[in-house]
Amino acid sequence: MDLARKILAGDVRSVARLMSLIENGEAEAIRALKDLYPHTGKAHIVGITGPPGSGKSTLTDRLIEAYRACGRTVGIVAVDPTSPFTGGAILADRLRMQRHYLDDGVFIRSMATRGHLGGLARATNDVVDVLDAAGKDVIVVETVGVGQAEVEIVKAAHTSVVTTVPGLGDGVQTIKAGIMEIGDIFVVNKADREGADRTVRDIEMALMMNPARGPWTPPICRTVATKGEGVEGLLEAIEAHRKFFLGADGLRGKARERTEHTFMELLRERLSSRALDRAGGNGTLARLLDRIVRRETDPYTAVEEVLSKLGL
Amino acid sequence: MDLARKILAGDVRSVARLMSLIENGEAEAIRALKDLYPHTGKAHIVGITGPPGSGKSTLTDRLIEAYRACGRTVGIVAVDPTSPFTGGAILADRLRMQRHYLDDGVFIRSMATRGHLGGLARATNDVVDVLDAAGKDVIVVETVGVGQAEVEIVKAAHTSVVTTVPGLGDGVQTIKAGIMEIGDIFVVNKADREGADRTVRDIEMALMMNPARGPWTPPICRTVATKGEGVEGLLEAIEAHRKFFLGADGLRGKARERTEHTFMELLRERLSSRALDRAGGNGTLARLLDRIVRRETDPYTAVEEVLSKLGL
Repeated sequence: MDLARKILAGDVRSVARLMSLIENGEAEAIRALKDLYPHTGKAHIVGITGPPGSGKSTLTDRLIEAYRACGRTVGIVAVDPTSPFTGGAILADRLRMQRHYLDDGVFIRSMATRGHLGGLARATNDVVDVLDAAGKDVIVVETVGVGQAEVEIVKAAHTSVVTTVPGLGDGVQTIKAGIMEIGDIFVVNKADREGADRTVRDIEMALMMNPARGPWTPPICRTVATKGEGVEGLLEAIEAHRKFFLGADGLRGKARERTEHTFMELLRERLSSRALDRAGGNGTLARLLDRIVRRETDPYTAVEEVLSKLGL
Repeated sequence: MDLARKILAGDVRSVARLMSLIENGEAEAIRALKDLYPHTGKAHIVGITGPPGSGKSTLTDRLIEAYRACGRTVGIVAVDPTSPFTGGAILADRLRMQRHYLDDGVFIRSMATRGHLGGLARATNDVVDVLDAAGKDVIVVETVGVGQAEVEIVKAAHTSVVTTVPGLGDGVQTIKAGIMEIGDIFVVNKADREGADRTVRDIEMALMMNPARGPWTPPICRTVATKGEGVEGLLEAIEAHRKFFLGADGLRGKARERTEHTFMELLRERLSSRALDRAGGNGTLARLLDRIVRRETDPYTAVEEVLSKLGL
């Protein structure tokens, strides 16, 4: 039986195997992804992002618990930047979630940057598709950090949750890097700390100033994830957002956005590798780079040369 | 007289004008960039990155001062994520550098994310090339935030400076997201604060654990940028790095890396837009997306269709 069929039949080891094939960029992964694609599009994809130390893993852990209590199955994709320095720390974070490994209704996968970012975003999308096809009701994509790359990844979710904690720098400064705009729901975690009211007020202010406000008003949830406080409220907010978008035909819109993003990234990647092959392979690239470095040509002219060789 | 010639003749307003054309993606910019390219490759490009609140702008301001005191001309490219919420805060940061506007030897430009990230990285590179061709001795690229996108941008520099401050979360956690690896020089700013020794030790530890260590050992500089303390030491470290790489023929290697990066990004971008045009324009894209959303096809098959239509 092939990989896709085994996955559709509920074989967990095949799910893990396909994810490894995806991460390693194996051709076999693509065959399986094609077979699985008709079975995707059912899961609710929830993205969670926020600065380091804002308790995202603990919050995710509590969300898993809450979803499981409602009988829903959950896939978790924890997206980490590769850093040989911090592999240990991230692993320790993940260990907190380990207790769910014994639960068939939960599948947890960590993803790391191997090479360029585009690759990570695409691999994350593919892994989400696998979990979707495998029948998980909810898929949580959790990122480490708040950079634009993480934003790109979380943007591909249907519902984006942005977390922060009181007392991280001045007000919303720590969550400013383009992520105020993507939050469908905001969470002030460690809300029993001093300054929680101020943090909530700062986010409210920032939201009011958002010129791109849509019909959805992002709620701000207070949680103390370590104690499980406020998690129910967060779950309700996530459900409310899902229903809002289902009602407004927005989930279809979001699904289309997600598709366009995936497709364009894939097209860019495939085109450049095929184009260089066709234009003469690595030798051509090396020769062009030499000429650019020696200032005999410039990057713009060199790209045009490649395009014209291809008849484009 | 055309734009490129005016820039080479030292016309500051033409420099600013070309930068605006670059940011707006105008075709005229490309013509000028091609003409300027033979005059690039002379400047030393220094990248500065670090978490929000680590005093990067103040540090950059002090570096400008120090370079000017040695008679060297400086270009600054401050790369900000576009955030309608924080435009004001970023502007206030920049105002500290305003005093240099009266100095002909200094040119400051802010860049913001407009649309996708690849575009920002490329526009930043182009702006650096303009400053290089315009004869600036040193070009400082300063980023807001520490995401992977910022890392990509700072990587394109010859010398990457990573800043942090004592007491930001636990140890190096705030500078972990892939940026330990890119630092040629580390700066512990606000070094008069409690915990500075610990932060320095944490960075030393992390550096020792780096499996990818090269022949250069990154120095760790302590500064109090607001008082100008330690800035001379930082300048010396930057110069030492430049000489090290010049000596080891490394600057040529770094220049080549930078060229390859620029070229590949540009190729990817141009290819996908030309390819979609040739494959039938926006109508084709919309039709393909519809079919993917309806699960009649999958992204991988759709990309292959486009490629085969193009004979690639």
